[in-house]
Amino acid sequence: MNAPFLPFFAQPRLPDAMAADQARRRQDSLTKPPGALGELESIAIRLAALQGRSRPRLDRIQISIYAADHGIAAENISAFPQAVTAEMIRNFAGGGAAISVLARCLGATLEVVNLGTAVDCGELTGVRRVLLGPGTANFARHAAMSDQQCAAAMDAGADSVRSARAHSMDLFIGGEMGIGNTTAAAALACALLGAEAALMAGPGTGLDASGVQHKAQVIERALALHAPYLNDPAAALCRLGGFEIAALTGAFLTCAQIGVPALIDGFIASVAALIAERICPGASRWWLFAHRSSEPGHARVLDALKAKPLLDLGMRLGEASGAAVAVPILRLACELHDGMSSFDEAGVSTKIA
Amino acid sequence: MNAPFLPFFAQPRLPDAMAADQARRRQDSLTKPPGALGELESIAIRLAALQGRSRPRLDRIQISIYAADHGIAAENISAFPQAVTAEMIRNFAGGGAAISVLARCLGATLEVVNLGTAVDCGELTGVRRVLLGPGTANFARHAAMSDQQCAAAMDAGADSVRSARAHSMDLFIGGEMGIGNTTAAAALACALLGAEAALMAGPGTGLDASGVQHKAQVIERALALHAPYLNDPAAALCRLGGFEIAALTGAFLTCAQIGVPALIDGFIASVAALIAERICPGASRWWLFAHRSSEPGHARVLDALKAKPLLDLGMRLGEASGAAVAVPILRLACELHDGMSSFDEAGVSTKIA
Repeated sequence: MNAPFLPFFAQPRLPDAMAADQARRRQDSLTKPPGALGELESIAIRLAALQGRSRPRLDRIQISIYAADHGIAAENISAFPQAVTAEMIRNFAGGGAAISVLARCLGATLEVVNLGTAVDCGELTGVRRVLLGPGTANFARHAAMSDQQCAAAMDAGADSVRSARAHSMDLFIGGEMGIGNTTAAAALACALLGAEAALMAGPGTGLDASGVQHKAQVIERALALHAPYLNDPAAALCRLGGFEIAALTGAFLTCAQIGVPALIDGFIASVAALIAERICPGASRWWLFAHRSSEPGHARVLDALKAKPLLDLGMRLGEASGAAVAVPILRLACELHDGMSSFDEAGVSTKIA
Repeated sequence: MNAPFLPFFAQPRLPDAMAADQARRRQDSLTKPPGALGELESIAIRLAALQGRSRPRLDRIQISIYAADHGIAAENISAFPQAVTAEMIRNFAGGGAAISVLARCLGATLEVVNLGTAVDCGELTGVRRVLLGPGTANFARHAAMSDQQCAAAMDAGADSVRSARAHSMDLFIGGEMGIGNTTAAAALACALLGAEAALMAGPGTGLDASGVQHKAQVIERALALHAPYLNDPAAALCRLGGFEIAALTGAFLTCAQIGVPALIDGFIASVAALIAERICPGASRWWLFAHRSSEPGHARVLDALKAKPLLDLGMRLGEASGAAVAVPILRLACELHDGMSSFDEAGVSTKIA
């Protein structure tokens, strides 16, 4: 492995089995038939293990959105012009984007990281600039990133998680924005899963059927071009990825390595998580999966991660919006776990022997 | 139809098509690819139609829980003793039950209605008493309720909704508690859908396989006994139902007739909704469906109502707990609808023509 990626190959931390056992015993004592709260029970137990306390909490949540442009946009694979990436960074900062509204409603801390766009949007309050170039190179012709760019992007993601830990965040959520990034994510998923592009290419922001077909052809060509490099997950990320996808990969790896639970958003975030799991097997035990995107490739990526997401609402926006919508479910799971009475406390009869 | 049920045969109100159109246009103007928020978009549009305002809100939510005992418990069809119904009423009032915790977290108004239990739990602060008897009769041998009891129970549910309207509630949620009530609900579902008991009987609070088989046999016997009455939905409700199921039916009918949107919980609430839709076709347009219960009969009842619930988390507690867990999703749909910027406001480029 190349030197720039070395720190990301550290082992994942082990979750706290004792806290999980205590949480499991508490769940079984609460005034409900055993198992009647379904996945809300397993969420509370998993968060106990990941937070190392028998009564987990989700008071402090950090949402980091990574934005960057993609050279592959030159191949006409998006329904929106490339200028939208920079325009949306401004919209995130201005409070009008979906994730801005959601972060406000959740009382979450929203960090926006600009990793490089085709149109420079300048300094903006609330936006961290880690400019790695005006976007990636067109991966239909070249490697999308150099090793150094990729490592720097991963480190930008890792920085968010180190900061989340320093600020005692209870949960990390990573999101993305970048015109063309479902094409990059689909190409990466093909490389990692050995799948055909026709199975992974989807409408993204709104391609029609012929647009999706063209997108799949672009991806097939790129997979042939980069074939010698695609057996290694970090190399595949450099060849086909994006700055924001690499940042998410670095963030999710760091979550596993320093022990911060992460909630994974949709298709692109899940592809970043899959790369992270391939780089550092076992990292996935630090992640919960928020939702099933309507982007068609997501199902296969989730299967490869053995992930069963909480929600299936036909969302496909990115920006961590699906993860944000799942947060109240995690919070209610914690509140039920903490606030319900036990059979003893409430004087309620238990199951007939 | 018998006179006691006459008021419940009124027509449902019509939702506000103009508010829905305005909401649909607003959704299409917001800074996201059209449709990218999936069901959150249709939720906002439906709530606009039901609340008669282009920007719906869910500030004020009423949760009414109806509790009652069931004579069918004598047939050993539950994993918990009948005393639990009264004990849980006390737990609701004391704040230790799942729905107590959830209502607190949501800032919702929680009303508990005691319709009659085998063990009297006396006057309790926060519990409305509409005692119709110490529970229903054993429907394996007799009609569960008289027409008068059933109409009084429906009226108790209707009263909650009239009060919700008087207090300007934005949403009504109905829930239930009653040892034995999955047996009553399964019998009703069989009667309404012409299904076999083996398809509708489930573990409820935790029966094992032989317990479920016994429960199905009890239901088959009862269906044979009451066969002459089961073509009429109100008569089926009297014969096989429970006070709390009738109260939910009356509540959901009243929602449709006076125009209060309702969020339907799991198996038992959905059976009550199915009866209501059979009594008053079109009532269902006033209801959203919160979750898919792990109780096996629920899927068929949802299909019959053409309902696609928001959540599928393996919950099977009742007490409106599944509906309560779905509330934040509805709220976030409203907040996104209200708070996001339009393309024009944010200066974001639209789709490539």
